Amino acid sequence: MTGLCTDLYEIRMTASYLRRGMTGPATFSLFARKLPPNRGFLVAAGLADCLDFLAGLRFNSGELDYLGAQLHLPEDDLAALAKLRFTGEVWAVPEGRVVFAGEPLLEVTAPLPEAQLVETALLNFVTFQTAVATKAARCRLAAPHTALVDFAARRTHGLEASRAVARAAAIAGFAGTSYVAAAREFGLPAVGTMAHSYVEAFPDERAAFRAFAEDFPEAVVFLVDTYDTLQGVRTVIEVARDLPDTAAVGIRLDSGDLAELAVRSRRLLDEAGLTGARIVASGGLDEQQLVRLSKAPIDMFGVGTRMGVSADAPYLDTAYKLVEYDGHPVMKMSAGKLSAPGAKQVHRGDPGQPDLLALRTETRRERREPLLQPVMRGGARLGPPEPVSAARRRFERDLAWLPESARRLVDPAPVEVIPTPLLTQLTESLRHSLAARYHHASR
Amino acid sequence: MTGLCTDLYEIRMTASYLRRGMTGPATFSLFARKLPPNRGFLVAAGLADCLDFLAGLRFNSGELDYLGAQLHLPEDDLAALAKLRFTGEVWAVPEGRVVFAGEPLLEVTAPLPEAQLVETALLNFVTFQTAVATKAARCRLAAPHTALVDFAARRTHGLEASRAVARAAAIAGFAGTSYVAAAREFGLPAVGTMAHSYVEAFPDERAAFRAFAEDFPEAVVFLVDTYDTLQGVRTVIEVARDLPDTAAVGIRLDSGDLAELAVRSRRLLDEAGLTGARIVASGGLDEQQLVRLSKAPIDMFGVGTRMGVSADAPYLDTAYKLVEYDGHPVMKMSAGKLSAPGAKQVHRGDPGQPDLLALRTETRRERREPLLQPVMRGGARLGPPEPVSAARRRFERDLAWLPESARRLVDPAPVEVIPTPLLTQLTESLRHSLAARYHHASR
Repeated sequence: MTGLCTDLYEIRMTASYLRRGMTGPATFSLFARKLPPNRGFLVAAGLADCLDFLAGLRFNSGELDYLGAQLHLPEDDLAALAKLRFTGEVWAVPEGRVVFAGEPLLEVTAPLPEAQLVETALLNFVTFQTAVATKAARCRLAAPHTALVDFAARRTHGLEASRAVARAAAIAGFAGTSYVAAAREFGLPAVGTMAHSYVEAFPDERAAFRAFAEDFPEAVVFLVDTYDTLQGVRTVIEVARDLPDTAAVGIRLDSGDLAELAVRSRRLLDEAGLTGARIVASGGLDEQQLVRLSKAPIDMFGVGTRMGVSADAPYLDTAYKLVEYDGHPVMKMSAGKLSAPGAKQVHRGDPGQPDLLALRTETRRERREPLLQPVMRGGARLGPPEPVSAARRRFERDLAWLPESARRLVDPAPVEVIPTPLLTQLTESLRHSLAARYHHASR
Repeated sequence: MTGLCTDLYEIRMTASYLRRGMTGPATFSLFARKLPPNRGFLVAAGLADCLDFLAGLRFNSGELDYLGAQLHLPEDDLAALAKLRFTGEVWAVPEGRVVFAGEPLLEVTAPLPEAQLVETALLNFVTFQTAVATKAARCRLAAPHTALVDFAARRTHGLEASRAVARAAAIAGFAGTSYVAAAREFGLPAVGTMAHSYVEAFPDERAAFRAFAEDFPEAVVFLVDTYDTLQGVRTVIEVARDLPDTAAVGIRLDSGDLAELAVRSRRLLDEAGLTGARIVASGGLDEQQLVRLSKAPIDMFGVGTRMGVSADAPYLDTAYKLVEYDGHPVMKMSAGKLSAPGAKQVHRGDPGQPDLLALRTETRRERREPLLQPVMRGGARLGPPEPVSAARRRFERDLAWLPESARRLVDPAPVEVIPTPLLTQLTESLRHSLAARYHHASR
């Protein structure tokens, strides 16, 4: 990660601030302006990558040469950029927690140039990973009693995205991932069976199944739909007869009417005495498909592409807004994009209570928990990187807290977020003073 | 890039093939089964990353330890994987070319274990980058006479995705990118102005504009919508009066009714004698918005999120299918997913002619150009990596070739792809022999 992993305007502004000595503390707030269609909540994710990025921020000499030559930045600017590190403070909602529109996911307080420069990367990590964790959570809600595993690697937006998707899905309770690099990095179960090509590379399906059972007796899930699904199941039954142990036998359905094929396959397997054989289903699944399949005798779903790209909502309407500079609250008034000033805190109450959006300086409320926690100070993390399981535990707890109305997959009602009187007062008074200065002049 | 950047089942199958000496040549064909809604064509992209991946493929010792410990692969498997490199041949449609459903974007011929192992990564790169290049091409069609630049970095799916998006957009004719790391790597113009936070960090808008003009006289595009857009334009006019040279002056509109604001801003600028001042527009743009804005006096569009995630079609229904193994054509018959056997070639004719989908062994047709080219042999590239400009030239040429009916943004009619008699005959005869073997038994 390097200083050039940002938008050009961040570098221009950073250079300008540095030239002018505008290095007072600035607070930026990162939040979703609104939820995508059919979303009743978001699942916070992406913080770990943000902290890695901030801790590693610097310009190397090749990058500085580029900025000098291509962007005509003078030597003084380059010298200042060469020294730049992230020395600020970060408050954030821990990964796995449920949040709503308008609630800060992350707030940075740092000398203005540093806080500005990191906008692009922080927005990117939080937006993408929160969108995917939220999509994965919806899949969980659609199939609460069936194991889900991540099969998305082949159609995410790059392999770095495959890594982040495996992690975000795990935060939302997925039981494993097919993407081996991520399984290794995050200590997740790696899962996977065989592809159609395996079956096709043998003289016939039976030979392929026998070979696979011989090679991987501990995990013999047979892909049965290469030629004819039910015929494939019958071949599995034959092959299983010769196995010393059928405890690990399963089948995977990957095309056709999955619900009907699961029923008919289950019947064939049960009649053959393979009552313990698992049925795995995959192929174009998302939360809507999972709801439709919820009554089918399926033991595990491989959920791929549509989860991994959050197909119906591949981005969130997030913003990283300056809310305070050098001790003064600030806000913008662009049409439809008004942002509230000041560093903030979210106070969460019991189930059924609205969240309170407060200034960070306001005191803690009784029976309410502050969502944002300090995670970095003086550019240093306040704790070691946490395992994915910690974020997953938070998600499970928040999912239990979330009201049914917000959990609904269609037309949900998000939990209300109410600004405190102090925040409302500050917003209004700043709005009036800015309107007096700018609007009157233009009308 | 490493051997673990793949799905677990690829590693299982690879290990199984190696154990069994199933190392005969296999050909896999990568293609889109169908086009997403409202797509009349695809723009091929992702090949450069595929070749890098193939050239770098290997398992390091830490990865082999992981596979041994976690997946219980025995020593012999690990030794075989340690030696594995990609030694095969790749034919591909060069980046920037226009393709249609069913046409191979890429074909790999290699010993079966190698060709299998790389499936996940090749599908990922080609699917994602082709989807985004196609989306960017649609933006070009929507605004053929206005410069477009990529502003997507903050909301793509990771920073690696930001890099790939900048490149894919450039292939489709975007004039620059805000993402500096990609601008540097690919030699693209880096573009960018100022953010709202810059304006807010100064005592007032006028002070911010003056400071910016002083610091970047060569590129003074002022963001005018922080408080009140037209008031912002008037402030630009005032500030510009004091500039020694107004040739580089411009404004950026980022919210509100962009068409109306552009008209009113243009009038104000012209009245003030700033007839050369450029108007840049950004904020939630995609091809539909660009069509709506096509009559507005806007000189450049910053196109961000919706292009960078290909918002209405964030993935393609791609497949990487075994079509030949050890000299024998193969195919699968899964419901709705029939794949045609054999290594292929696409023969393209004059405008208005359908494409011919042929076996690669068929002879070249008169007045037709073969789309797939050999790009790697014996695991080595057949040429140096090419500049983005080469792909962009191909795109411009193919765009001129593409019939109006396929260019339409809504309900387009893709160019027809007709299989040759030889391909049809091979497909039918294989289908019959497989059906005889598998379907009869199950009915």
